[in-house]
Amino acid sequence: MEEFKVIEIKKSIFEDNDKDADNLRQELKENGTFLLNLMSSPGSGKTSTLIKTIELMKNDFKIGVMEADIDSSVDANKIAETGVKTIQLHTGGMCHLDASMTRQGITELGTQALDVVFLENVGNLVCPAEFDTGAVKNAMILSVPEGDDKPLKYPLMFSISDAVIINKIDTAAVFDFDFEKAKQRIKALNPKCEIFLISAKTGQGVAEWAEWLRREVENYNVQ
Amino acid sequence: MEEFKVIEIKKSIFEDNDKDADNLRQELKENGTFLLNLMSSPGSGKTSTLIKTIELMKNDFKIGVMEADIDSSVDANKIAETGVKTIQLHTGGMCHLDASMTRQGITELGTQALDVVFLENVGNLVCPAEFDTGAVKNAMILSVPEGDDKPLKYPLMFSISDAVIINKIDTAAVFDFDFEKAKQRIKALNPKCEIFLISAKTGQGVAEWAEWLRREVENYNVQ
Repeated sequence: MEEFKVIEIKKSIFEDNDKDADNLRQELKENGTFLLNLMSSPGSGKTSTLIKTIELMKNDFKIGVMEADIDSSVDANKIAETGVKTIQLHTGGMCHLDASMTRQGITELGTQALDVVFLENVGNLVCPAEFDTGAVKNAMILSVPEGDDKPLKYPLMFSISDAVIINKIDTAAVFDFDFEKAKQRIKALNPKCEIFLISAKTGQGVAEWAEWLRREVENYNVQ
Repeated sequence: MEEFKVIEIKKSIFEDNDKDADNLRQELKENGTFLLNLMSSPGSGKTSTLIKTIELMKNDFKIGVMEADIDSSVDANKIAETGVKTIQLHTGGMCHLDASMTRQGITELGTQALDVVFLENVGNLVCPAEFDTGAVKNAMILSVPEGDDKPLKYPLMFSISDAVIINKIDTAAVFDFDFEKAKQRIKALNPKCEIFLISAKTGQGVAEWAEWLRREVENYNVQ
């Protein structure tokens, strides 16, 4: 088993999370570190999508991963096997991360030698959407088994995501998931959003998502 | 489309939710109304499981349903088609229901003529586990596509559930879901928990779950 540190993060002491998030974004910018906040329901495939994404990017970027969970380290164990720098954040029951909590992880991870940091947020479509973590970009995963009606039920999450990854497309034959309806519902909430169809299991479509992310990281560094 | 009322529920004014939940449970007992709180991740199949359960029970019990959602009425539309009394609760962004919020729904629904009320909680494995709604029994759904590791990651939800329904078993062939591991992990957290394997799509296993629920309702009424 690979080694990784476990951090018990503390509740935020800042009243103004939006301001704190902007400060963190500025600090990350000064270090040239691109922070991606990845969100989804439990079991949508955040960890397996991250593993496939890391495989495609780790030769070209120095990558770090922060795995947020209520109190387990299941996912950090899997991510650490990719060989990238990984830490586990335990939220102590909290259902989301805010900017102050994200900074506690960033401080432990150390960003000065990292080009890209992935934050795997707590599995939840409600609370994480309400708190700016300080990330440069937000991405979310909707998996085919969850159904194409989720944008109707969790609109804020779809509204604040720069990219929506529709995962588990290899299982489309056994679920009634209407891809066109899903895309229309997402675009109605968030016209600028990028939508990617992938299977983290088979690898299908992951290259397109990783290519978009690569361009975002490269643009970030020249701005 | 069937008719149902939409209630914008207000934030709780009670500081002591546990006490308020006990009071609500007592009030329901006096009316002979059995309240089941059904929880799960988004997309695990709460609504479709409820529809199948209602079909098996509605000839013998007077049933009401409260559909809690952040701000949509997608599920209430589906449930109302079963012909049972249905209301939609809008939480205004809140990720859970507490006892006071549940009472607002109960008051609107009116329980005096109802034997069984189903509360479909907000899709979320974190927050709803932390608030007693006043229900007689808690049930949760874990769906096969979410993975057998979820009890490790969301232990509180599995600990407080009297019954865990493992749904979408018709899709087991396309997912790496170890049923024995899942059961062991659930039982390790909650030895008394009842576990049911169902497919709300095909109907497989729903009768066993509904039979357990029927016995619980009958026992409740003779106590």
